[in-house]
Amino acid sequence: MSVKVGIIMGSDSDLPVMKDAAELLEAFEISYELTVVSAHRTPKRVANYAEQAEDKGIDVIIAGAGGAAHLPGMTAAETSLPVIGVPIKTSKLSGVDSLYSIVQMPGGVPVATVGINGAKNAALLAIQMLGVADNNIRQQMKDYKSEMAEQVKETAAEVEE
Amino acid sequence: MSVKVGIIMGSDSDLPVMKDAAELLEAFEISYELTVVSAHRTPKRVANYAEQAEDKGIDVIIAGAGGAAHLPGMTAAETSLPVIGVPIKTSKLSGVDSLYSIVQMPGGVPVATVGINGAKNAALLAIQMLGVADNNIRQQMKDYKSEMAEQVKETAAEVEE
Amino acid sequence: MSVKVGIIMGSDSDLPVMKDAAELLEAFEISYELTVVSAHRTPKRVANYAEQAEDKGIDVIIAGAGGAAHLPGMTAAETSLPVIGVPIKTSKLSGVDSLYSIVQMPGGVPVATVGINGAKNAALLAIQMLGVADNNIRQQMKDYKSEMAEQVKETAAEVEE
Amino acid sequence: MSVKVGIIMGSDSDLPVMKDAAELLEAFEISYELTVVSAHRTPKRVANYAEQAEDKGIDVIIAGAGGAAHLPGMTAAETSLPVIGVPIKTSKLSGVDSLYSIVQMPGGVPVATVGINGAKNAALLAIQMLGVADNNIRQQMKDYKSEMAEQVKETAAEVEE
Amino acid sequence: MSVKVGIIMGSDSDLPVMKDAAELLEAFEISYELTVVSAHRTPKRVANYAEQAEDKGIDVIIAGAGGAAHLPGMTAAETSLPVIGVPIKTSKLSGVDSLYSIVQMPGGVPVATVGINGAKNAALLAIQMLGVADNNIRQQMKDYKSEMAEQVKETAAEVEE
Amino acid sequence: MSVKVGIIMGSDSDLPVMKDAAELLEAFEISYELTVVSAHRTPKRVANYAEQAEDKGIDVIIAGAGGAAHLPGMTAAETSLPVIGVPIKTSKLSGVDSLYSIVQMPGGVPVATVGINGAKNAALLAIQMLGVADNNIRQQMKDYKSEMAEQVKETAAEVEE
Amino acid sequence: MSVKVGIIMGSDSDLPVMKDAAELLEAFEISYELTVVSAHRTPKRVANYAEQAEDKGIDVIIAGAGGAAHLPGMTAAETSLPVIGVPIKTSKLSGVDSLYSIVQMPGGVPVATVGINGAKNAALLAIQMLGVADNNIRQQMKDYKSEMAEQVKETAAEVEE
Amino acid sequence: MSVKVGIIMGSDSDLPVMKDAAELLEAFEISYELTVVSAHRTPKRVANYAEQAEDKGIDVIIAGAGGAAHLPGMTAAETSLPVIGVPIKTSKLSGVDSLYSIVQMPGGVPVATVGINGAKNAALLAIQMLGVADNNIRQQMKDYKSEMAEQVKETAAEVEE
Repeated sequence: MSVKVGIIMGSDSDLPVMKDAAELLEAFEISYELTVVSAHRTPKRVANYAEQAEDKGIDVIIAGAGGAAHLPGMTAAETSLPVIGVPIKTSKLSGVDSLYSIVQMPGGVPVATVGINGAKNAALLAIQMLGVADNNIRQQMKDYKSEMAEQVKETAAEVEE
Repeated sequence: MSVKVGIIMGSDSDLPVMKDAAELLEAFEISYELTVVSAHRTPKRVANYAEQAEDKGIDVIIAGAGGAAHLPGMTAAETSLPVIGVPIKTSKLSGVDSLYSIVQMPGGVPVATVGINGAKNAALLAIQMLGVADNNIRQQMKDYKSEMAEQVKETAAEVEE
Repeated sequence: MSVKVGIIMGSDSDLPVMKDAAELLEAFEISYELTVVSAHRTPKRVANYAEQAEDKGIDVIIAGAGGAAHLPGMTAAETSLPVIGVPIKTSKLSGVDSLYSIVQMPGGVPVATVGINGAKNAALLAIQMLGVADNNIRQQMKDYKSEMAEQVKETAAEVEE
Repeated sequence: MSVKVGIIMGSDSDLPVMKDAAELLEAFEISYELTVVSAHRTPKRVANYAEQAEDKGIDVIIAGAGGAAHLPGMTAAETSLPVIGVPIKTSKLSGVDSLYSIVQMPGGVPVATVGINGAKNAALLAIQMLGVADNNIRQQMKDYKSEMAEQVKETAAEVEE
Repeated sequence: MSVKVGIIMGSDSDLPVMKDAAELLEAFEISYELTVVSAHRTPKRVANYAEQAEDKGIDVIIAGAGGAAHLPGMTAAETSLPVIGVPIKTSKLSGVDSLYSIVQMPGGVPVATVGINGAKNAALLAIQMLGVADNNIRQQMKDYKSEMAEQVKETAAEVEE
Repeated sequence: MSVKVGIIMGSDSDLPVMKDAAELLEAFEISYELTVVSAHRTPKRVANYAEQAEDKGIDVIIAGAGGAAHLPGMTAAETSLPVIGVPIKTSKLSGVDSLYSIVQMPGGVPVATVGINGAKNAALLAIQMLGVADNNIRQQMKDYKSEMAEQVKETAAEVEE
Repeated sequence: MSVKVGIIMGSDSDLPVMKDAAELLEAFEISYELTVVSAHRTPKRVANYAEQAEDKGIDVIIAGAGGAAHLPGMTAAETSLPVIGVPIKTSKLSGVDSLYSIVQMPGGVPVATVGINGAKNAALLAIQMLGVADNNIRQQMKDYKSEMAEQVKETAAEVEE
Repeated sequence: MSVKVGIIMGSDSDLPVMKDAAELLEAFEISYELTVVSAHRTPKRVANYAEQAEDKGIDVIIAGAGGAAHLPGMTAAETSLPVIGVPIKTSKLSGVDSLYSIVQMPGGVPVATVGINGAKNAALLAIQMLGVADNNIRQQMKDYKSEMAEQVKETAAEVEE
């Protein structure tokens, strides 16, 4: 089966956050690949990655980056696939810098931004996008939501005691 | 042809921003519907809208809201379709309030957030999502990007003179 | 005696903060109930909770939530009872996101917002609201304020030594 | 009929915002009084106002102020009645200063804070508090909410055309 | 010798910061008193303190407070003596709330604000104010500045090695 | 009579704000001088101004500046007189940049900071400082405060009508 | 004479700001070129521009951009020449987004950032960099600084009158 | 060989950050000197340092400072050499104060600002500036960038496994 989702990040220091996305895709049995692509240290690699993604069968790219977080935006610049941006929390500005750098894209080149360190939600969003083309995946998402609701009710029952 | 994209907003005062999304979808000949659904004044309407969207054939929902902007998040809570959130600029906090209220969703319920007043980019993101299931739409997106690049070069030529 | 105050929160991770409200209500011998209701994971539960609250005799609802903190606002959308919102401190944006999401409500649907992690003050505010209908409770509040003033004077005496 | 709600503000420059509260109370036929009380220029007046409010029959105080907005907090310090704070938008810091000064109260002395310039919501919150003691007022609030929902549906119908 | 400087704070939790002011005044052999006065829990005490300060011989008041930090401003409202405000760092908003609440005073009632947790600088500022009336104190300040410059040069020499 | 207060600013574009300080000093009949001294364009001039101020009889310096507002801090570095800093509102960051640059001084070199564009309050603070050495000035300040209180009461009477 | 400075910007809407850089370089008789290069719409053009700059004789690149301002950082990624970034003021976030996106670069790829809309200072910084290799240019910079100081003194003389 | 780069900082508490600049210059075999110069405690020392720098052969100055970080700006005021500013992270405002104080310089006196705690990038920027006059240094910078790219690829290979 071809790879459906590409997960990239600016540095391996982002891996502890971004692996949440990988784990969730695994739980949904969605094939993915994961690598490091630095917009600033390896700009050509960004272009190459973005251009080859479609040929590999990738339908959605998840890109995480912190600070002057250019990776999601530059990936979006080089591909027509939807790109989901994960602002990584930074030790100095808590990720507000990452968030603004990722979300405030100019007209013409969107990045689908999730919350700071929101790699898990990035994966869920990717799954929802794949669900546009695949009813089985959409059904999986529905089941996931039902399960979440059940868990809240269980927690509520415990708290009420 | 069934409606593919649902555009909703919290108030008709958001219409001057949100119509950018409608216009871009028209330019791409993507069928859409557009209405007002207030999370706070008509909470049941949000639930109904979200639940019926899939049956109407809607694949992606674009929701714009300002201030304590709950509409995108509450729509995402009620559907398994991908929801794109547009933070509307506010007169008091410039849309930082809208941005934080939309993007900082809890794990399990993502909203694909675009920049403040980024309704046009929301439409482009919706088109990229539809492109996951439709190569013609993906091709349209590629053509759009090529055209943008051409326009930059023309502008550059004028500026250089 | 019927329940007077309902305390709800978006997740059991909010419990360490929100139990301050419960403890203060106990000290005032005000009956309350406490549970978990997630706006995003269990939206229907919010509507049900809000609608049934009045029938249970609840006069005031205290709702705590963090991040894109929709629970107080969505509860306020579904009930005519006063709703007090407690913005929970977040690890990423310190609760500014929670504060903006709770306080910046649109015209027509107020949430009585207290400070970040201000669950104790939320309970005091609920007591002041109950005092509108009950002079005994109002008197309790006066006694509480007198006691606080006494404590400051005692602390002052210690510090001055 | 005695006065039920006291509306105070730090300066008459706050009147264009605060009159929204007065107008809404009039629409609900709730008796109120409105005056100027500066925490910084007339501190004794704050104490006197707060102490006499209860004897006048006032059940809720609405206080609006901008900048280092001490009026709501100082009023809350001097009374056991619930105090609603309205942060007034400022020309320099857009009302973030007013919001922080009003909402971040220490434990023991809550102020029920509404959004920046949210005088209308302050009045609705006051009405909800009065509704704790008066079922007619609570019913009025329910009718108001129904009417708001109707208006959204009408607007939606216009927008959809 | 009469007391020259009054140091007050909103809570004894501010003492670890505010004692820096006391220590510096001791080093300059300026007589001072130090106590706890809560603007919110003991508003009358603020008024009394401020009114009696001048009779005690106090020429400058230093007031530290955090969050909705009303103590410096309310003290300034009640006296004609210069009041120096020390914004205390808070666990939630890092002291931005304290800073805005103290510095953004309305026209007519200034507070001389120093940096967040800047109690030492508050004492130096008080000394400079006392120096307006006392050349010996002004000379002490000059000596202090010379000594600081010497220390920098010594540090520089160590670092250069 | 010698000059008591020196008013300086970084640029003549600050004059519309800073003249409020001059006008208030005139109303109090306090002698002052006013000039332009740029920390960045004329650093030597700052040093000279600060060093000569004391010999001219100046007891307090008021310094206004915007952006990376170094003038108040550099003046404070060069003199033992108290320096009052006025953060000027900027078109880009609303004066938050000016405020942080002025108030966040390191230990040893305080600047008495007033609110953004608070030149009038800077003059009142200067007057309070002069009042440390001069009971007549202190009395003037008391009269000023009484008058302010009267004006609030008059305004209140008008608003109440 | 070969071109010494390259001025690029993300959009021709940045031209009213960026032309300040061009005008200052003209006043110093430094040869420059100016064009539009969009990081997001023409990513390949950024790479080409950056790679060819050195061969054209360019020693310094000035890049202006707003919002998720990736142009300066991506240019710096593709060249070893020093890159000066000019954060353009935005209508939504005042340029804080541009500033954070430009200045918070990761280790290894610096951008020399100037203030928001600081195109004139970007040109002066470029001149200072050229002065590292050319004493005539360094002397021009000294003359410019002397002239600025003179202008401040003239302004001061006018204001003092 | 003469000293090429001067590294200065406001306090020896900045040394743990600023030594990154020194280490990188050593790796490039660029001669530098490093010392402590406090803008606020030793203002004359700033002027002297800046004036003598050129005679010592210094071509670029790197200045690090935190809070009301005046050192980079005041150094730039006193020299025609390019000055690179390093905003040091602060415990209270995370370095936003330092950043604004350094980057928001007035027209005429630029500071080349790098990210918060970005001392390493300051050194790289200094090297790029020296490369304007020295092709060997420019080549070293190119080699450095190639090596960085290689390291990313190696990291990527490890992560992909």
